[in-house]
Amino acid sequence: MHYTGTMRISDKGHLEIGGIDSVDLAKKFGTPLWVIDENGLRDNCRRVKNAFDSHGDALVIYASKTLSNMAILKIVASHGLGLDVVSGGEIYTAHKAGFPMEKVFFHGNNKSVEELILALTVNVGRIVIDNFYELNLLEEICEKLNIHGQEVYLRITPGVDAHTHDFVKTGLIDSKFGFTLTDGQALKGVKTALEKEHLILAGLHCHIGSQIFTLEPFQHTAAIMMKFLYDIKQDLGFEIRELDLGGGLGIYYFAGDEPSTYEKWAETIMNEVAKQALELGITKPKVIVEPGRSIAGPVGTTLYTVGSHKVVEGIRKYIAVDGGMADNPRPALYGSKYSAIIANKANQTADELVSVAGKCCESGDMLAWNVNLPQPEAGDILAVFATGAYNYSMSSNYNRLPRPAMVLVADGQADVIVARESYDDIIRNDRLPARLE
Amino acid sequence: MHYTGTMRISDKGHLEIGGIDSVDLAKKFGTPLWVIDENGLRDNCRRVKNAFDSHGDALVIYASKTLSNMAILKIVASHGLGLDVVSGGEIYTAHKAGFPMEKVFFHGNNKSVEELILALTVNVGRIVIDNFYELNLLEEICEKLNIHGQEVYLRITPGVDAHTHDFVKTGLIDSKFGFTLTDGQALKGVKTALEKEHLILAGLHCHIGSQIFTLEPFQHTAAIMMKFLYDIKQDLGFEIRELDLGGGLGIYYFAGDEPSTYEKWAETIMNEVAKQALELGITKPKVIVEPGRSIAGPVGTTLYTVGSHKVVEGIRKYIAVDGGMADNPRPALYGSKYSAIIANKANQTADELVSVAGKCCESGDMLAWNVNLPQPEAGDILAVFATGAYNYSMSSNYNRLPRPAMVLVADGQADVIVARESYDDIIRNDRLPARLE
Repeated sequence: MHYTGTMRISDKGHLEIGGIDSVDLAKKFGTPLWVIDENGLRDNCRRVKNAFDSHGDALVIYASKTLSNMAILKIVASHGLGLDVVSGGEIYTAHKAGFPMEKVFFHGNNKSVEELILALTVNVGRIVIDNFYELNLLEEICEKLNIHGQEVYLRITPGVDAHTHDFVKTGLIDSKFGFTLTDGQALKGVKTALEKEHLILAGLHCHIGSQIFTLEPFQHTAAIMMKFLYDIKQDLGFEIRELDLGGGLGIYYFAGDEPSTYEKWAETIMNEVAKQALELGITKPKVIVEPGRSIAGPVGTTLYTVGSHKVVEGIRKYIAVDGGMADNPRPALYGSKYSAIIANKANQTADELVSVAGKCCESGDMLAWNVNLPQPEAGDILAVFATGAYNYSMSSNYNRLPRPAMVLVADGQADVIVARESYDDIIRNDRLPARLE
Repeated sequence: MHYTGTMRISDKGHLEIGGIDSVDLAKKFGTPLWVIDENGLRDNCRRVKNAFDSHGDALVIYASKTLSNMAILKIVASHGLGLDVVSGGEIYTAHKAGFPMEKVFFHGNNKSVEELILALTVNVGRIVIDNFYELNLLEEICEKLNIHGQEVYLRITPGVDAHTHDFVKTGLIDSKFGFTLTDGQALKGVKTALEKEHLILAGLHCHIGSQIFTLEPFQHTAAIMMKFLYDIKQDLGFEIRELDLGGGLGIYYFAGDEPSTYEKWAETIMNEVAKQALELGITKPKVIVEPGRSIAGPVGTTLYTVGSHKVVEGIRKYIAVDGGMADNPRPALYGSKYSAIIANKANQTADELVSVAGKCCESGDMLAWNVNLPQPEAGDILAVFATGAYNYSMSSNYNRLPRPAMVLVADGQADVIVARESYDDIIRNDRLPARLE
């Protein structure tokens, strides 16, 4: 098994996270339960920051769409990272958490007028403009609000195949995101941005995809973008000072996954940028990167209680847990695979082949196919690993299931950072018009 | 275009639903907005009930996982339909809406002890037992609580291929649901159920899948289940009196979809059951069916505001709207296709080929590929049809987007039945442990 952070097997043979028996966590806080390993999270923040800082001028910004709530953002901020936000709701959360707004970068392919005004009002550091429409819209809004000097980036679509899942491949040309590099739109975008009176073009951004294991696509992208910086200098006489190369570093989910490391990722990107700057004779830009999944993913574990089981003779044994696609839609969305153990039998031999069903009334609600577990029984606690990213953030109330609680564990202490929903929460926004009463 | 219910094009050339201009709805209630056509909904309830009643003893129960909130359940109840619920949250909603609980059927492959106790406490009419584990668990709970005579069904997996999407094919043998018919588990389940002191075996249930266009699979399933009723009578001397044949009737989403009708569906099922009863010499059981999507799906329309656009030369034009996979995850989950028009240009020629992007920061967030629309511009209202089922119910706060409001429209009146979420709702369950303050 692939343990991360503070995970260990206790003397009782139980999974322990942050110095606490996970079986006790399940008993105290109920299941399904999202458990976040605070020291693991802090360690990831420190490591990725150090990895980039050691190579020169860089800023690591945390992609908050992977996991955003006030406690997580407080922790991320405390380590000096910046923040990547993609909506008014994420800006609002960051603002309420007291995140230093000058380090907040606002992304998105269709920011609304209201969201842009919110971003300007709370002084986000950079607005990453996605297309010509938005470039003109933001200029108009700034003019109306008499705001001068808002620093912006342009999102560039560099046309790199990141060798990843179709759904998370964003660097290719046929994308809803960004100014296409290859057809001259990107250069035209830069020229237009430079003409805007109320905006300052501070840098360029790109993002080639998610859950990437090899470093070549990152190196290739850095080279392409540096070449573009050179072209801009040649054509427009303007030096781009900040280069945001996005996120996408893959993590371990399941046997066979071979992710890289922060150190190698930083070295690859920073060296390529330095090398290209030297070769092209341009000033080395400040480098921004946007890790999300690699920071939040591995430090999250979901605890479920095993309930019913069913044997289809000669085919398969199903066991079912008390959560599923409502708290983790990734298997249904992407066919994602997860590793799991029985938390209360963590030192026992995993000698029974089972498939793990979620509780939603839908055949596609399967959390794992064909995993070995030690004779799972009703009441056992199933721990599913690497659920910190895109689980809470994508969770729904499908089947009107209340969403789980999230606890932060460290040094033997556990604190709720997201309260469990109740049945009353489920109907809280329901309204009955008088004529139906 | 495929208009349903009270939809029409007004003299202004706008889409009108329930006698109200949809452009006015967007203005008054904001977008994204789920609009439910009340008279269309009531008409569907009446039509499906009449279709089955006209053939004999039948009960139509609405599958509330497709769309459940207090207002919708009030309307469904007023037409004499029963209810299919799949969780404690759905039971709670039904109970709060004053739904007659004796007509509520509780389904699910992994009902928790708490959910079963809730179901017993509010006296749901039937509990549909999914497996041996649950059969024993429910008997134990009833014994402890001294409850006698709870009426139950067994869910049977008949092994029928419904020729539908893999994810919603539930009748095949390798399923997390039900007692397998072909290997003798189902018969053993019936025998075991009959031996339970506290439970009354009232009927059998099966469900072969969703979004089915042809009627043969329903007919085939009815025949298989009737043959099983015959076998039970032969082997155990017991007559099953109620037969629940599930839901699954497909609806129109996109050009090429050719759904059947309530009338033909009812005729097919009821005639086959009657025919088999006669041929096998067994009493004709009461028939239960569980339509959900066909009732709620077509009467829902989502209104979005068009925002940014982007042209990839020689490849595609993207337009983006202010919602997406957070309010409708079905395109990302199943590759589902939807029909759409520009509500404020409903009588104009749809002569521009575009792809409609959602606003989530994810390449996979596309609502429609290659649809013809009349020159979409920022500020236009895009109406996406047939979004009543599995949109609100599967919606999330991905990207920390507040969930849309839902309005019920009829005879020129519009009432909010689900309030729009605010940014404060987004952070409402966030908690900050003292040590992070």
